[in-house]
Amino acid sequence: MQGEIIAVGNELTSGRIINSTSAFAARHLFAAGYEILAMHTIGDAPELIGLALKRAIRRADFVLVTGGLGATDDDLTTEAVALALHRPTIPNLDLLAQIRHHLHSIDAPPMDPLEKLAWLPQGAEALSLGSKMSGYLLIHDQKPIFFLPGIPEQMQILLIDQVIPRLADWNPEPAVLTCQRLYKIFGREEAFINRQIEALALPTEISIGYYPVFPEVHLSLILRAAAGSRPQPVFAAACTAVEQALGHAIYGHDEDSLASVTGQLLQAAQLTVATAESCTGGLIGHLFTQTPGSSSYFLGGVTAYANSMKTEALGVSGELLAKYGAVSAEAATVMATGIRALSSADIGLAVTGIAGPDGGSANKPVGTVFIALAVRGHREVHRYQFLGNRQQIQTITAKTALDLTRKYLLQSKTE
Amino acid sequence: MQGEIIAVGNELTSGRIINSTSAFAARHLFAAGYEILAMHTIGDAPELIGLALKRAIRRADFVLVTGGLGATDDDLTTEAVALALHRPTIPNLDLLAQIRHHLHSIDAPPMDPLEKLAWLPQGAEALSLGSKMSGYLLIHDQKPIFFLPGIPEQMQILLIDQVIPRLADWNPEPAVLTCQRLYKIFGREEAFINRQIEALALPTEISIGYYPVFPEVHLSLILRAAAGSRPQPVFAAACTAVEQALGHAIYGHDEDSLASVTGQLLQAAQLTVATAESCTGGLIGHLFTQTPGSSSYFLGGVTAYANSMKTEALGVSGELLAKYGAVSAEAATVMATGIRALSSADIGLAVTGIAGPDGGSANKPVGTVFIALAVRGHREVHRYQFLGNRQQIQTITAKTALDLTRKYLLQSKTE
Repeated sequence: MQGEIIAVGNELTSGRIINSTSAFAARHLFAAGYEILAMHTIGDAPELIGLALKRAIRRADFVLVTGGLGATDDDLTTEAVALALHRPTIPNLDLLAQIRHHLHSIDAPPMDPLEKLAWLPQGAEALSLGSKMSGYLLIHDQKPIFFLPGIPEQMQILLIDQVIPRLADWNPEPAVLTCQRLYKIFGREEAFINRQIEALALPTEISIGYYPVFPEVHLSLILRAAAGSRPQPVFAAACTAVEQALGHAIYGHDEDSLASVTGQLLQAAQLTVATAESCTGGLIGHLFTQTPGSSSYFLGGVTAYANSMKTEALGVSGELLAKYGAVSAEAATVMATGIRALSSADIGLAVTGIAGPDGGSANKPVGTVFIALAVRGHREVHRYQFLGNRQQIQTITAKTALDLTRKYLLQSKTE
Repeated sequence: MQGEIIAVGNELTSGRIINSTSAFAARHLFAAGYEILAMHTIGDAPELIGLALKRAIRRADFVLVTGGLGATDDDLTTEAVALALHRPTIPNLDLLAQIRHHLHSIDAPPMDPLEKLAWLPQGAEALSLGSKMSGYLLIHDQKPIFFLPGIPEQMQILLIDQVIPRLADWNPEPAVLTCQRLYKIFGREEAFINRQIEALALPTEISIGYYPVFPEVHLSLILRAAAGSRPQPVFAAACTAVEQALGHAIYGHDEDSLASVTGQLLQAAQLTVATAESCTGGLIGHLFTQTPGSSSYFLGGVTAYANSMKTEALGVSGELLAKYGAVSAEAATVMATGIRALSSADIGLAVTGIAGPDGGSANKPVGTVFIALAVRGHREVHRYQFLGNRQQIQTITAKTALDLTRKYLLQSKTE
């Protein structure tokens, strides 16, 4: 079954909000075996919504519409459906009772605008009675059309709990088997990776995609095969070839992040890490702690944004700062040993640099960054010259620090 | 002039990558006075790309196509244009010479795949000769069609440096004047805000939009008027009414963030802040340091993820931890005074909580968070029970901490 996704909202067509809901829906539908032919974003205009809907119904086997279902005056999706598909809205009495019950409990005026949420196009079935989320299913021209709220948190719950199971009922035997893997690569350029992969001459039925996701490159392998066939051995061989060609430049795959993979290596080695951050302001710690369970290897850190914090908390002396500057190999090294001593972590990881836009000099332009790693009996410090705006320099600095830690752990594992 | 945007790429229709380029383009085009009728995302299939392109050209005054212009085998946009618009690709000799020159310098094999970038549809003009970015302009049916790379950094540069100036040449007198303001609100629900705004009965020609952007709500006012008219006084009066109705729940507007606004207040009061973070892992510091110049008020912080860091760096005693626990009003308060003492900052800001998914208990379930603020002669500590997944709890904790600091600064300003 092939689908289309329509997202509704002026906040999207004016670019105020990035449409993350369509991507979320596409990812989960794709993983469940459905192909998305196209995704459309339409402003809050009933005629345009109606046109897009009719065209999608003609072309696709199912349609998912998000947004424009709320109680505020700019929510016009249901009105558009009524007009375009000739389905007048009628009140769903269960929904209405539920909303009135809720309104009683908050002492609202009679005929509160929230009651609008109970009016659905004729023939629509509410997706989640009893919850506080809008959303309905309409069967039109024998095709399922799902309407979900645009609020990402609500849309995500309804997509996973309602849409995907109901689609599976609709389509009990998927005609297609999908093997897929997304490799995540740090420290190599897209063109270089492309050349390495082309040299492998992988089977042509495997589609290969290259996606620069700053500062990483993601490489996707997808093999779709008829149900009942056995594509797995071909796919596994291709994966092995890719992994051998790119080696440790691949840090992980699919849901992995640099921080989660580094964390797994720390956990496996039973080592702990603590951070001393300057130009990244806490980003490395934030990345580590996005992973549940990170408290077993990430002890914490010091964000030494002001020089006084470098001195007070990390023991970087005033003389050192005067002689070499806060952005120097010397400062980075003392920061790494200092945080290691303060925290009693096995590994001290320190970054200091100039994220810009101001603060650069001829010797140390914006983007100059030093990263140091201190372990018992081992020190390393590296100088980098990163390009980009402030946010990009902070991001690539944090990820380079994680990658240095990862590579140190990989190397010490094999020694 | 009204436009449509088409983004091309299987990475988008499969949901692996969130389409941020279309939103960026829409935001900048909207600000330049153009309306975006619709945005489409199409997979790497030449027929579907061609169909979407032909339909957009029929409906809109200009079209922007992003993605599928690279040198890898999955880049098919130019092929789709050739087929759909009957414009065979021919080599652009200047581009070809430039690419060959670059390839010589990196010792590439003859007929490198990069040469593909020099082949453009008949009649196309390269947008940025001499740069390393793809992108061209095609005039078709007297309408400008811009083709830009899908890599966000490159697309953004070409959009601003090439597309918007060239569109302005095309359309020297914009027929429409736009007044717009995006209010950013923290700590109020969308439905509550909606009721407050409806009570104002603003002029109906102002379009009002409500956008929950977790954990904030953004409120957009837009007034479009004919060129030559004077919509500004009506718009300014509406803005004043909104600001009076919502008061300090509005923390800022347009490009403001909670961290940048809090930073401006700190700067105006000539005060400094330092953070002691547990469950947020450094996120508050990261948010502060996203703003250029934040070093004048943000001194740094301690991320005390492990209890040992709370004790060693912040002076939270083992007895206190044993008696009240690390997630307690008592621990938060000592963390705030501890970081204030360590950093010599005017304000110590501390958070400790349970971000989940594990670690909750009956008394302190996941989402329990304590936030403390310590200033000379003033202490406050608050308990919260936040809902959501790990990432949401971390985000709302960090933003609540910023908002507490903002409100303290606003209040002490008026005292």
